[in-house]
Amino acid sequence: MPDHDLDAFFARHIPLTQAMGVRLDRYDDAGLALRAPLAPNTNDKGTAFAGALASIITLSGWSLTHLTLLDAGEHAQVVIAHSELDYLRPVSGDIVAVCARPAADAVAAFVDAFRRKGRARWELEAVIHAAEAPAVRLRGRYVAWRAA
Amino acid sequence: MPDHDLDAFFARHIPLTQAMGVRLDRYDDAGLALRAPLAPNTNDKGTAFAGALASIITLSGWSLTHLTLLDAGEHAQVVIAHSELDYLRPVSGDIVAVCARPAADAVAAFVDAFRRKGRARWELEAVIHAAEAPAVRLRGRYVAWRAA
Repeated sequence: MPDHDLDAFFARHIPLTQAMGVRLDRYDDAGLALRAPLAPNTNDKGTAFAGALASIITLSGWSLTHLTLLDAGEHAQVVIAHSELDYLRPVSGDIVAVCARPAADAVAAFVDAFRRKGRARWELEAVIHAAEAPAVRLRGRYVAWRAA
Repeated sequence: MPDHDLDAFFARHIPLTQAMGVRLDRYDDAGLALRAPLAPNTNDKGTAFAGALASIITLSGWSLTHLTLLDAGEHAQVVIAHSELDYLRPVSGDIVAVCARPAADAVAAFVDAFRRKGRARWELEAVIHAAEAPAVRLRGRYVAWRAA
């Protein structure tokens, strides 16, 4: 699927993504993954700083929302309204945040609501793994409205 | 109260704090505030990037926990285990995350549990204001254990 130059968007508009080294890793029917190296994102324990993990996993859901609407030909402003984060274990390698694409009917309902009302919201789940086990989980509510 | 060189700790151990420009703004009986300028933390809308807000407010609770234990003469590893974040309005100036110090009996209970068991947890609340209204709220559960 087209990635609508997400990396260029990050570079142009969100300077902290460059400090974290965040790049789009994958965008397909299953969802989206962002990847960042550990080195710029470490903490005092030599593992990933919780603030970097929170930032990257939050951005993964934002990115999936942004690209889903672009795929539908819609230009939107997207923000996060609420999130819950569970930190389950340390991350000691690349940080890969995977945001799952909701089922096709949920995607269609989201895009349809956006087109009818110029505003829509949905709940997304994302995860960062470490050594094949979930290390950070996010449940986030993202809101989109028609760009002026 | 002594700040135990928190800014130096950030500079030495958490590189992302330097990219965000986070500094200790205040540490006293009421709690702790971290401050960062907007410029390195902007998004596509020219306001603060949610990922930077999440990172700084999460760090404010970590910092209060870390300093509270240092004040008590205890060296601990501190991590966040769980958080809930509400994003209520955009932030378009300096980002100031204020983490309130719990009541004296809660602080005493936390330090006492840490001393008896070598491990303790507590819940903290933090807020980032914008134009005198709450813009981001965090409720976070932080866990500390005796450093090896």
